[in-house]
Amino acid sequence: MRPLNSKLFTFSFVEEPVYRPELKLLDCSIRDGGLINKWQFSDEFVRATYQALSSAGVDYMEMGYKASKDQFDPKVYGKWRFCDDEDIKKIVDGIDSDMKLSCMVDIGRVKEKDILPKNESPFSMIRVACYIKDVSKAIGTCRMIADKGYETTVNIMAVSTNLEREIDEALNDLSKTDIPIVYVVDSYGAMYSEDITFLVKKYKDALPGKTIGIHTHNNRQLAFGNTIQAIIDGSNFIDGSVFGIGRGPGNCCLELMLSFLQNPKYHIRPVLKLIQDYYLPLQQKVEWGYIIPYMISGMLNEHPRVAISFRDSPERDDYVKFYDLLTTPETENQTAGA
Amino acid sequence: MRPLNSKLFTFSFVEEPVYRPELKLLDCSIRDGGLINKWQFSDEFVRATYQALSSAGVDYMEMGYKASKDQFDPKVYGKWRFCDDEDIKKIVDGIDSDMKLSCMVDIGRVKEKDILPKNESPFSMIRVACYIKDVSKAIGTCRMIADKGYETTVNIMAVSTNLEREIDEALNDLSKTDIPIVYVVDSYGAMYSEDITFLVKKYKDALPGKTIGIHTHNNRQLAFGNTIQAIIDGSNFIDGSVFGIGRGPGNCCLELMLSFLQNPKYHIRPVLKLIQDYYLPLQQKVEWGYIIPYMISGMLNEHPRVAISFRDSPERDDYVKFYDLLTTPETENQTAGA
Repeated sequence: MRPLNSKLFTFSFVEEPVYRPELKLLDCSIRDGGLINKWQFSDEFVRATYQALSSAGVDYMEMGYKASKDQFDPKVYGKWRFCDDEDIKKIVDGIDSDMKLSCMVDIGRVKEKDILPKNESPFSMIRVACYIKDVSKAIGTCRMIADKGYETTVNIMAVSTNLEREIDEALNDLSKTDIPIVYVVDSYGAMYSEDITFLVKKYKDALPGKTIGIHTHNNRQLAFGNTIQAIIDGSNFIDGSVFGIGRGPGNCCLELMLSFLQNPKYHIRPVLKLIQDYYLPLQQKVEWGYIIPYMISGMLNEHPRVAISFRDSPERDDYVKFYDLLTTPETENQTAGA
Repeated sequence: MRPLNSKLFTFSFVEEPVYRPELKLLDCSIRDGGLINKWQFSDEFVRATYQALSSAGVDYMEMGYKASKDQFDPKVYGKWRFCDDEDIKKIVDGIDSDMKLSCMVDIGRVKEKDILPKNESPFSMIRVACYIKDVSKAIGTCRMIADKGYETTVNIMAVSTNLEREIDEALNDLSKTDIPIVYVVDSYGAMYSEDITFLVKKYKDALPGKTIGIHTHNNRQLAFGNTIQAIIDGSNFIDGSVFGIGRGPGNCCLELMLSFLQNPKYHIRPVLKLIQDYYLPLQQKVEWGYIIPYMISGMLNEHPRVAISFRDSPERDDYVKFYDLLTTPETENQTAGA
């Protein structure tokens, strides 16, 4: 029997918990999941998600993208494509929660007037997603966001397609800023654990003092395993989504992360209830998960857009045709993948 | 341009191929998949699998379990529960193939008379599955099998539930035999990559000169990632199954392994065709894959039998009820999981 009440034990426990208290968990179900259904989630669905994630001890919930309404048609896209602060306030109203809220902006799709000062907004964090060529723009956007009082991150997408020289230059630029969090993003679900280790180490070495985030896609059933590898390698800002919801194959399952992390603040049970009540029924209507065309686009390190369009065609389950489409050397008759 | 025809390049290539030529891939679709449908696969289904895996360059195909008919009712169980040599010969007849055939035996469920001498049999390998308490029996069975001329392996199941002392003793016993291959088996889909590394290293250290196999289950979407980890750690006998077919969550997907391995003898395309023609339609009738009760049994390091029975009940998608069933301290009203 361990001396639970002894001073020695208490001291030892406080000094060295078996978990990593600085690790934060961010749920991106509504934001990344919205890529499947044009963010047409009902208020009830988003509120149930907010309630369950709060009970589960999740640190951040990403409510969607913040975008200008002159860029996207509000008749086509749901509320969570825009993340109006008033819409968000209705969702969280009356629910007791310590969870922080985030939203994402894409470079060039948001204007400064769309972002209120933090003290007028329900959001704590605004994350900036960009391709590597736009890192300088992302740094400028982050500065504007930080000046308004928010936490911010830079999420460099699709680095599996970049040359190491480009990555090094981008990290060098980021190292000169006070942006606190930079993400390794496996947009195409193409990375192995060795790639994760390589990139997390590279980001850590280039960005001393910054926190490294990890955002994975599940094309090859590696999202959870690669996220664990990133944590082993020192990543402390972790993205997941409920039941893995997200474009194509989806993301790292939040419930799997909750089953893995040792911090006693986390609880899996509210998320299991959320899945059975809301996410399983939704999956009958919109697809995500292990689907062969997305597996193929992942193994080929390709954007999922060709697979998405193939899944909308009558040949959606002709996997050989899709494989041939992406692997046969291009001829004048072939335009897909170009 | 690399000097493809130069003597230097040829020499260098022969000396150090980028892949590991000694690594072997074994497909267990029919054997492990049969646990879902009582091995009621049609001859056409098994023959199509045999044809496709041969074209894919897979090294071994496991056709099922070899078992005595006085132990299982042939009216209830399909052919692949028994693997009569004559049934197997019909499947492979007329198909050009370099692929070897294996079957599995469970300790105590097969008699010596069921196993013909190898020169009268289509099988090259007979694998022996056992729990750790039966390793001595497995060694005896392997000796009988090897004496008849077959390759053989010992697959110690459910080691995630064993004490290290038990594992060390079993490995010590195995080290004194000439059994060439011993498997690390994650029967409950409970292991993380760190557990895989720990066990593969332990097996390698205890069994010098032997090949270490890896067989994973996909309860937590870690089957592929953990198999890659085992390969990194030196495992060279790799189990997979088509589209991951197998009991509960299923196994490591063979097509994912084929997308990962660099040996030019392997080809993914025939397996993609097999999936679309046979395995996707089958999955509409019998379930396997990422299913929350199996995720829960994996995270709790439990045999999937409670999850299997729960999935057969009307409450099959009441995940919270299943979670509570397995995690609430036992009371007089609770018998499941005992």
